[in-house]
Amino acid sequence: MEGLVHCSANYVPLSPISFLERAAVVYGDSLSLIYGDVRYTWRETLVRCTKLASALTQMGISYGDVVAALIPNIPAMYELHFAVPMAGAVLCAFNTRHNSTMLSLLLKHSKAKVIFVDYHFLEVVSGALDILSKSSSSLPQIVLVLDEQSMPVGNVTPPSENFEYENLLATGKPEFEIRRPRDECDPIALNYTSGTTSSPKGVVYSHRGAYLNSLATILTNEMATRPVYLWTLPMFHCNGWCFTWGIAAQGGINICIRNVITRDIFRNIVEHKVTHLSGAPTVLNMIINSSNDEKKPLPNKVIVVTGGAPPPPQVLFKMEELGFMVIHGYGLTETYGPATVCLWKPEWDTLPPNERAKIKARQGVLHIGLEEVDVKDPATMKAVPADAKTMGEVMLRGNTIMNGYLRNQKATEEAFKDGWFHSGDLGVKHPDGYIELKDRSKDIIISGGENISTIEVESVIYSHPAVLEAAVVGRPDDYWGETPCAFIKLKDGHDNVTAADIIRFCRDRLPHYMAPRSVVFEDLPKTSTGKTQKFVLREKAKALGSLSHKKNSKL
Amino acid sequence: MEGLVHCSANYVPLSPISFLERAAVVYGDSLSLIYGDVRYTWRETLVRCTKLASALTQMGISYGDVVAALIPNIPAMYELHFAVPMAGAVLCAFNTRHNSTMLSLLLKHSKAKVIFVDYHFLEVVSGALDILSKSSSSLPQIVLVLDEQSMPVGNVTPPSENFEYENLLATGKPEFEIRRPRDECDPIALNYTSGTTSSPKGVVYSHRGAYLNSLATILTNEMATRPVYLWTLPMFHCNGWCFTWGIAAQGGINICIRNVITRDIFRNIVEHKVTHLSGAPTVLNMIINSSNDEKKPLPNKVIVVTGGAPPPPQVLFKMEELGFMVIHGYGLTETYGPATVCLWKPEWDTLPPNERAKIKARQGVLHIGLEEVDVKDPATMKAVPADAKTMGEVMLRGNTIMNGYLRNQKATEEAFKDGWFHSGDLGVKHPDGYIELKDRSKDIIISGGENISTIEVESVIYSHPAVLEAAVVGRPDDYWGETPCAFIKLKDGHDNVTAADIIRFCRDRLPHYMAPRSVVFEDLPKTSTGKTQKFVLREKAKALGSLSHKKNSKL
Repeated sequence: MEGLVHCSANYVPLSPISFLERAAVVYGDSLSLIYGDVRYTWRETLVRCTKLASALTQMGISYGDVVAALIPNIPAMYELHFAVPMAGAVLCAFNTRHNSTMLSLLLKHSKAKVIFVDYHFLEVVSGALDILSKSSSSLPQIVLVLDEQSMPVGNVTPPSENFEYENLLATGKPEFEIRRPRDECDPIALNYTSGTTSSPKGVVYSHRGAYLNSLATILTNEMATRPVYLWTLPMFHCNGWCFTWGIAAQGGINICIRNVITRDIFRNIVEHKVTHLSGAPTVLNMIINSSNDEKKPLPNKVIVVTGGAPPPPQVLFKMEELGFMVIHGYGLTETYGPATVCLWKPEWDTLPPNERAKIKARQGVLHIGLEEVDVKDPATMKAVPADAKTMGEVMLRGNTIMNGYLRNQKATEEAFKDGWFHSGDLGVKHPDGYIELKDRSKDIIISGGENISTIEVESVIYSHPAVLEAAVVGRPDDYWGETPCAFIKLKDGHDNVTAADIIRFCRDRLPHYMAPRSVVFEDLPKTSTGKTQKFVLREKAKALGSLSHKKNSKL
Repeated sequence: MEGLVHCSANYVPLSPISFLERAAVVYGDSLSLIYGDVRYTWRETLVRCTKLASALTQMGISYGDVVAALIPNIPAMYELHFAVPMAGAVLCAFNTRHNSTMLSLLLKHSKAKVIFVDYHFLEVVSGALDILSKSSSSLPQIVLVLDEQSMPVGNVTPPSENFEYENLLATGKPEFEIRRPRDECDPIALNYTSGTTSSPKGVVYSHRGAYLNSLATILTNEMATRPVYLWTLPMFHCNGWCFTWGIAAQGGINICIRNVITRDIFRNIVEHKVTHLSGAPTVLNMIINSSNDEKKPLPNKVIVVTGGAPPPPQVLFKMEELGFMVIHGYGLTETYGPATVCLWKPEWDTLPPNERAKIKARQGVLHIGLEEVDVKDPATMKAVPADAKTMGEVMLRGNTIMNGYLRNQKATEEAFKDGWFHSGDLGVKHPDGYIELKDRSKDIIISGGENISTIEVESVIYSHPAVLEAAVVGRPDDYWGETPCAFIKLKDGHDNVTAADIIRFCRDRLPHYMAPRSVVFEDLPKTSTGKTQKFVLREKAKALGSLSHKKNSKL
């Protein structure tokens, strides 16, 4: 078609940077962030981020460089989400639970040129640099983030005054010309997959993907203009499921908290009229198990977005009793956080509570940023029938899927085989198109040739009134191959519950072969994002050895 | 960065087609459209649109071909918004008020290969083809849309049974492979600018722009999941400000109505629990001036999105009294409909009503799909000071600006001079960044060297209790150059109001030079979208000749 052009008037590479620039115009005088006594407006946040971006470029940071961060949910972590891309660079926010060894590996792999460190984690980073210095000649520059709201007893001295966060920011120029991505598919963030596997991969997000996923997140979670978002989800976790950028898009207020403590949750909700918060089911667990003294009546509707694992029915019921509205989503680091949502249908309102809870635990349907999600046979790439029974691998495609794994072409190609992202999660599709996870491919238990979904077994165990947390893994078995083994943490004051009680409880509610044959009571090993580390439990179950079958048959 | 790839797993050209495909999965059993007794679900709408796209390709329609439509807000018009792009083609929805002459010009310019025609407009189209046949050898194929809900007395016979809408649709294959844009900047729609100028230009929209503007529209107008949208805005007008595609994105219900009649508005709002409707201020006028018999209490919050002209204060007050929440936006055909919105600030709630109305009449700030809006001196391209006084031209840039004017490279280049879209509207910028229109460049009156904003004068006239509608244009004047001339339509029963009354009323409220010197009482000429045709009024004012200055000075 003649007469058309492609120019700066009608084409701008998509980037979350636009959200901040717009927020400074549209919501300029409104609060962008509250952290204890610290308060910024959107206009101030844009100025601070611009100065920080300017300061980064003065340090030599340029297009494509990686800038790392080891910081909890305090203002600096939020500002880096904009300032680093505005310098043309790539933000790599590390899990604050990493130790020096892990950190040294990730710093080496990411080739980070700078690392911003909260004073609490300085020792970990120093340790990592010590290790790194043995194999590498160029070490990342440290910028120390001091936090006046929560300073330690002793004084912390930054490596040099110039490399203290506020000092560095002060050297930046407010008139700095923000660096836009040259192509909207350019990287904006690098997120190492955490937790359930022991070999982390560097997942690369693009400006385009981050922009689109932010809008999808807003829409999926019914986030109207000016939301008030409480940061109970770590920002280092998939960039806070893109809520970091999304809150700017809607001109909301970020309520930052250093540590996720029950009392702080309720206090902040009431004080700031929080509209949204998110987190793994552990956060929901914390909320419902808080003392009556800590609990407070909610001042308005509070939406809680959860993912990472389906919320157990009892947890859902109690959240609803407290007045929270829970939205359950599903996704992976590779999908910028939640990619599907169990979108509620009005006709489900009238179902009995147990039915509702069962439905809400489904992973649901794709959000608007994604193109397709399906459950497929990975061998044939054919979709499984939507019969709620046939298992297959959950696969996804669309603009909110990662660019790939950094410096790991092989893993990238495997993940994108046949033009779909292979999640490694096993699930079924319901007749209405809603997907439901049954297990991670590697978590599924195969017992006497039958697939056992550990999620289904866990869901039954969770309905036992004495159970606080549970995880089921396969225990090697000479006869069956594997049998289910449950690791359980009991609620306080329920120490009298026995393994036999739990097994009987499960047998009353599940096919015989699915009920655990062994039960271990102990605290569950977790990642910082609240995911149970099943590979640790599998090792423990392995160490238990095979069960004697005579003994089992008596149970 | 190594290891990354660009493939169908992580890149899909943005297109509103994705909204429909997703709606059929996510909202499959929910209603997509209601028109009298006609009801479709989203699953059915996808099947119908797929079959129609298939049928179009069977007619020979291919990538880039233009498919025209002359249809009111009935289901066929909605379906064509998806079916045409799904065949790879470009939808050109014509204003249903065009006559045969105008239509023949536009058909020729657009090179449309097919035209879908509502039976009501068959005669106009036949007339247009008669004219066209004199200068062109290839005429567009006609597809007749019969509407059982509203058939004329006599039978209408389609040119051939195959070219009746439902018959044609029936020939399509539901398994047709939907044609995706090869590039997301490929055209999706062609919209001829209507109304205020006499030489229409073909504005080209892209899949990308339509996708992004749809999301922006949803977010700007606080459209949560499953909205109920009443079609009081013509779908041919900027593709219904992208609500056509946006409603699919949110799984809403489209309530179609053939004619916009007050009684139908209230009846539909109550019956279907409408959440949103939109239209020019004339629609608001209709609503507030409806009889008590027609008015009904609203069943829920109803958001009314208005644009095209600022809603006069009295209209706003009355809408609010009736319980409507009015959102005022501003845009042009070139910006896919509204591009800015007078986003309400909480601190304005407590202002006196007149202040609030004055603020709400501002054009406001950019929506999230746009990159920048500013008021600039077109000579220097410098932004005017944000002093609410200095006038400049409103300019915009971003992904929701047209690709250009079809086969009019010169006009495209002029519009995009210096990398910004030049709107041709004159305005000021308030200290808080909100823009306010003062006039179209060509509407502004220059009287004795002073700029007079016709919008400001009209706004005062509208506050007169006897005035239903008003428009002010320049009348040639030997001494002053121009003086303001008001055209006014009075409310029923107010015929006793005189020109002198109006002039006195304005002089009490405006600087002397801004008050009209002449007043004409008559019905205002309008475009079908409710815009006053000022070029017609200017001709009338010209015909009045210059005023005698002696006579004037007495007033």
